[in-house]
Amino acid sequence: MEEKSIGIALLGCGAVGGGVLRILTEQRELLRQRTGLTFDLRHVVVRDVANQRGSQKIPLTDDAKKAIDDPKVGIVVELIGGTTAAAEHIERALKLGKAVVTANKSLLATRGAELFALARRNNTCIAFEASAGGGVPIINALVRGLVANRIEALVGIVNGTCNVILTRMTHNGWSYEQALREAQEQGFAEADPTLDVSGRDAAQKLALLASLAFNMRVAEQDIHVEGIEKLQKAEIDYARDLGYVIKLLAIAQRQGDGRLGLRVHPTLVHSGDVLADVSGSFNAISVYGDALGHSLFYGRGAGQMPTASAVVSDLISVALGTAQIEFQRLQIYPDTTAAAVVLPFDQTESRYYLRLMARDEPGVLAQVTKVLGDHCISLSAIQQRETDAGQFVPVVITTHLAKEGAMQAAIAVIDALPAVSAPSVCLRVLELPKEFAGAT
Amino acid sequence: MEEKSIGIALLGCGAVGGGVLRILTEQRELLRQRTGLTFDLRHVVVRDVANQRGSQKIPLTDDAKKAIDDPKVGIVVELIGGTTAAAEHIERALKLGKAVVTANKSLLATRGAELFALARRNNTCIAFEASAGGGVPIINALVRGLVANRIEALVGIVNGTCNVILTRMTHNGWSYEQALREAQEQGFAEADPTLDVSGRDAAQKLALLASLAFNMRVAEQDIHVEGIEKLQKAEIDYARDLGYVIKLLAIAQRQGDGRLGLRVHPTLVHSGDVLADVSGSFNAISVYGDALGHSLFYGRGAGQMPTASAVVSDLISVALGTAQIEFQRLQIYPDTTAAAVVLPFDQTESRYYLRLMARDEPGVLAQVTKVLGDHCISLSAIQQRETDAGQFVPVVITTHLAKEGAMQAAIAVIDALPAVSAPSVCLRVLELPKEFAGAT
Repeated sequence: MEEKSIGIALLGCGAVGGGVLRILTEQRELLRQRTGLTFDLRHVVVRDVANQRGSQKIPLTDDAKKAIDDPKVGIVVELIGGTTAAAEHIERALKLGKAVVTANKSLLATRGAELFALARRNNTCIAFEASAGGGVPIINALVRGLVANRIEALVGIVNGTCNVILTRMTHNGWSYEQALREAQEQGFAEADPTLDVSGRDAAQKLALLASLAFNMRVAEQDIHVEGIEKLQKAEIDYARDLGYVIKLLAIAQRQGDGRLGLRVHPTLVHSGDVLADVSGSFNAISVYGDALGHSLFYGRGAGQMPTASAVVSDLISVALGTAQIEFQRLQIYPDTTAAAVVLPFDQTESRYYLRLMARDEPGVLAQVTKVLGDHCISLSAIQQRETDAGQFVPVVITTHLAKEGAMQAAIAVIDALPAVSAPSVCLRVLELPKEFAGAT
Repeated sequence: MEEKSIGIALLGCGAVGGGVLRILTEQRELLRQRTGLTFDLRHVVVRDVANQRGSQKIPLTDDAKKAIDDPKVGIVVELIGGTTAAAEHIERALKLGKAVVTANKSLLATRGAELFALARRNNTCIAFEASAGGGVPIINALVRGLVANRIEALVGIVNGTCNVILTRMTHNGWSYEQALREAQEQGFAEADPTLDVSGRDAAQKLALLASLAFNMRVAEQDIHVEGIEKLQKAEIDYARDLGYVIKLLAIAQRQGDGRLGLRVHPTLVHSGDVLADVSGSFNAISVYGDALGHSLFYGRGAGQMPTASAVVSDLISVALGTAQIEFQRLQIYPDTTAAAVVLPFDQTESRYYLRLMARDEPGVLAQVTKVLGDHCISLSAIQQRETDAGQFVPVVITTHLAKEGAMQAAIAVIDALPAVSAPSVCLRVLELPKEFAGAT
């Protein structure tokens, strides 16, 4: 087999960059045997060269432009993050016709279509397996394994930080604050955890994944987002009694009319669903295809080595030339597809979990159920819970399928009842997409 | 984007072939939009042309050679199955330099290396995503997403028939015979179910998957195989009490010295493991990589449309040219790698579940535990169960890690004890591979 050496410029050498260095160094011989490729790491661009890492002889520089411009560099690996310097460097590389490998989800979620188009005009490509789901090879699955399917729904646990917090709250009975504090201490959550716990990180990943899965351009702004910051331990407990686990899910679902429902929110997942068992920092993405039925991809959503593994798999695809072929031939990337027609969130259909605090007196449940009935919302279960909380007692209701708009209107009326202590808590219950596959 | 039309000959038009026809017909426009490809189905080869299927105008013929030789045919899809006619047709196509897409696991497990080599000599390729795991895009994951990893272990539920039967036994408390009968009635098991329930089908799939994962040529004969035919309901129940579910697992595990342990057998899986929740006809394959850590791929392991989905994804990869590049460049296929050095089964280390029927009299447990101790086998738990079975009572033992050879020797001694009613039942307990990933 012919052997081939490819010049690489690595921009950024933090955790993931260090992992990429480690794989390229420690597995150099394995990669060469397996792929016939050797990667010639010509430049490692860092902000402060003096702050050299480890004892390895790595070609450190602080001159990104020179590294990118080096004619012997064929692939530029962008691991700086952020949307300013990273974007400049990627543009520079693409304009020189060099392929880009990136893990930069924020940048692709905001400027992906533009950068993809630039790559296309310059006859090169962007590979971005590491940008969503870390080590889970979900982009590869969407581009290749599932390409013969019309995707009906994509449902994922795509934020490890939130899943670590929710797993602690579920398994250990901790409060949100306690679980967040531990996640911060263990490095699973940032000092400012907003991007993760608000659901925004999950929404950026969903924008990328849904664009590829449904061949429609999805922007972060298309997605209704609720985070886990206000989630109370009571909901975890009541959900468990009902046979559910609460997960932060990113959901994209094709409607009969072709519109796309897009949302990120804490969701009750039935304990029999494989997603319910995805714990800690693991991610998992369920995909429902018209031919394949239900498939699921599970793995480390983040972390140094899993993300580095995804970056190196992209490096190999680019070096072999398969990434370019797919990028140039498949009409599934956001720059070649139309903008998604988005289902307004209030028209979304879901099952609901509702917990309200009602005065323990005759007739209250009748008032509440009447309001729901007036809004055409049908109950599947209702339970008044025992409590020591004083004069208000928790009432937990689950509903059959209802429209979000009707549900919010009903809650507004319920919360205005004198016998109810507002605000009520409303969560959605995951309705498993039906299977379409011939296999029963 | 340039559009491209590719001539196809479809050999065999049973369930999967019919599914391929359906996708190519019903999703013709979706596939064209997404890939720029149209598939020109020039010949559908069946044994009996008179027995025409449906009302579609399909170009039926019974002349496989003519179909393969048609110069306008670029890809031959082999869905006949078996190892005789199928092999002839595949050889004919490869010698003409035509790419082959096949779902023929038996053929690849027995003659894969030879056929791969033939494809290579003729500068073409064989694509076989559908041959293991049906709709689960596991081969794509091994070839691409995980290519930067040294794989440490692969653990899979890869036979849907067995999983349907075991799920019934577990969830419904049925006997093996009862569950098998229902599976046969529902089409999940053949009239002669031997290939599936003996574990041989799973072993053939493991041979294929392990060859790719570990870059070593694995033959079916390298694999220790035990089926589920003798599994008793008692084991399902005792396992549940211990917190386990019994699954037929296909396991390949790299040893420290590079040897490969290869086995298929009913296995106790801890109920907290994602594999424990893989029910019915679903398949799932856990892969442990040195960088990625634990990843898992879940989906329909068989069935018309899931398998057809995999065939069409291969058709697209071949038509785009990416399948050829990977086949020719990656040194991971069985014809380019050395034969696996196999760990003899009696040297395999495992935890064990042992159920013996012991006379309910003083001193028996002491005798049994002494035998185990004499063989350096350390108990993790022992429980004498209540029963109405008469003078013999079940004793359930679980052990720490022990060598298979020592365990079998100990069982031989135990079964010879006058106070024990042989044969004792011995099952292995899945020991989760440690994670290697940087992510915690």
